[in-house]
Amino acid sequence: MMLLAILQANASVMDVDANLRTIEDAAQRASSAGAALLLTPELFPVGYAPLRLHAELDPATLPAVRERLAGIARTHGIGLVYSLPAVAPKEATHDDAAQPALAGDAWHITATLLDASGDEILNYAKVHLFGPEEHKAFVGAHVPPAVVDFNGIRTSMLICYDVEFPEAVRAAATRGAELLLVPTALSAGFENVPQVLIRARALESQLNVAYANHSGHEDIYNFLGGSVVAGPDGSLLAAAGEGAALLFAEVGTETVKAARDEVPYLRERRPELYNEWEQQA
Amino acid sequence: MMLLAILQANASVMDVDANLRTIEDAAQRASSAGAALLLTPELFPVGYAPLRLHAELDPATLPAVRERLAGIARTHGIGLVYSLPAVAPKEATHDDAAQPALAGDAWHITATLLDASGDEILNYAKVHLFGPEEHKAFVGAHVPPAVVDFNGIRTSMLICYDVEFPEAVRAAATRGAELLLVPTALSAGFENVPQVLIRARALESQLNVAYANHSGHEDIYNFLGGSVVAGPDGSLLAAAGEGAALLFAEVGTETVKAARDEVPYLRERRPELYNEWEQQA
Repeated sequence: MMLLAILQANASVMDVDANLRTIEDAAQRASSAGAALLLTPELFPVGYAPLRLHAELDPATLPAVRERLAGIARTHGIGLVYSLPAVAPKEATHDDAAQPALAGDAWHITATLLDASGDEILNYAKVHLFGPEEHKAFVGAHVPPAVVDFNGIRTSMLICYDVEFPEAVRAAATRGAELLLVPTALSAGFENVPQVLIRARALESQLNVAYANHSGHEDIYNFLGGSVVAGPDGSLLAAAGEGAALLFAEVGTETVKAARDEVPYLRERRPELYNEWEQQA
Repeated sequence: MMLLAILQANASVMDVDANLRTIEDAAQRASSAGAALLLTPELFPVGYAPLRLHAELDPATLPAVRERLAGIARTHGIGLVYSLPAVAPKEATHDDAAQPALAGDAWHITATLLDASGDEILNYAKVHLFGPEEHKAFVGAHVPPAVVDFNGIRTSMLICYDVEFPEAVRAAATRGAELLLVPTALSAGFENVPQVLIRARALESQLNVAYANHSGHEDIYNFLGGSVVAGPDGSLLAAAGEGAALLFAEVGTETVKAARDEVPYLRERRPELYNEWEQQA
């Protein structure tokens, strides 16, 4: 079993110092409480503001931000998931869909998992972009979520809207994921996403899902809060209200194994039929 | 808008007369209340008991049962979904998987939608069989859920365990379904299936889902009850307790359209990627 901490907080758009102070404070508290990993929301170090980020953020400043985040993990001896924009690799732009509506470099929205030494052990780029602002400022990626061992738990990542698609979580689960870490930026009014969809994703693919959201207002957005951790039986292991919160949940592999032994969803799904059906539709 | 009625009740295994009386009583009450359609649970006319059905049910008696069910629809002027075993077409047995563990004819578990004249307008055979008894007595089918117009609503069917797989509901939704009718036989202890998974299926594929379960004991089974109707925003439109119940819910196409306009899940999913990812996994 591993104690996981989830930061729900309000970021200041383009105020990296303030946002990293919020992350460092959470990392210190989480580490003191015995957590091995801190999950933070989508684009938290720079604030969630796709069009302002595209206009104002100099990507040349990002390596230093990433180094400071690695320093936070190292200093407090805790794993850390953060989310930042990243320049998309050139080959991604061969795809017609991989062109942002705004001129300039094509950016992905990414998530990075650091171990407690601050080393990057997993990266992911968001596949499903949400809403007109994201589509203007970013391009969607094509690479499925990978899986890495973190403290004995096979761990994967998705970002925000991705997890609303059951197919994306299947891709992590069929690669062996037992824990799915999801930085998000979900607006107020979408309570059913954490309360229904996240629980269903955990239950139908029988893994732990942690979903870390912003709270309050950033740029033109008003966020729900409502971060959750769901277990592989679909139960809520932890849930936040609408304000800032540091959530904790114990996650492990035994509940995953128990759920998969009881109802073998992953063994009894029929992907070859689904693909045929998709072609025919 | 259409008023839908959902029968939750206890069946008597191999007592067709008693079970058809239960269905006819519900059809009469549902019709009087203005319902256009009555959904009944999985295998209700014969009782849910895979091994006993395989041992004791003479398939030659089934056409007469189907004729009596058509008579109920006609008499009460109401659409009807019922579920019965049906001999699988010979070609299905070309598939290795299409062999039941028990000797004799290969049977499917099927669902039939009758219009208010008693005419069959849609058939479906269960693809995902649940548990060792079903696997012994039946074979899983391969054909995706089809869609038919019922009172101006594009309507499809799945059976029980099928609906726990998001991919099966996607197959109905990508074929245009706005209403998904699901006869089921869900055991006690699986509350998260109606309360979490069914709501998630409705929300993620943005259609109405009606899920009609048995109550009480039949054969070796103890059923949950807990039948539900969920709307395309993931809300519960109706929910039963554990005992016998006749549930009603208004279902229509405007809430489907509104949900799909607000968040375009079906347009923004990326099936070509999912198929690639599945091949690589």
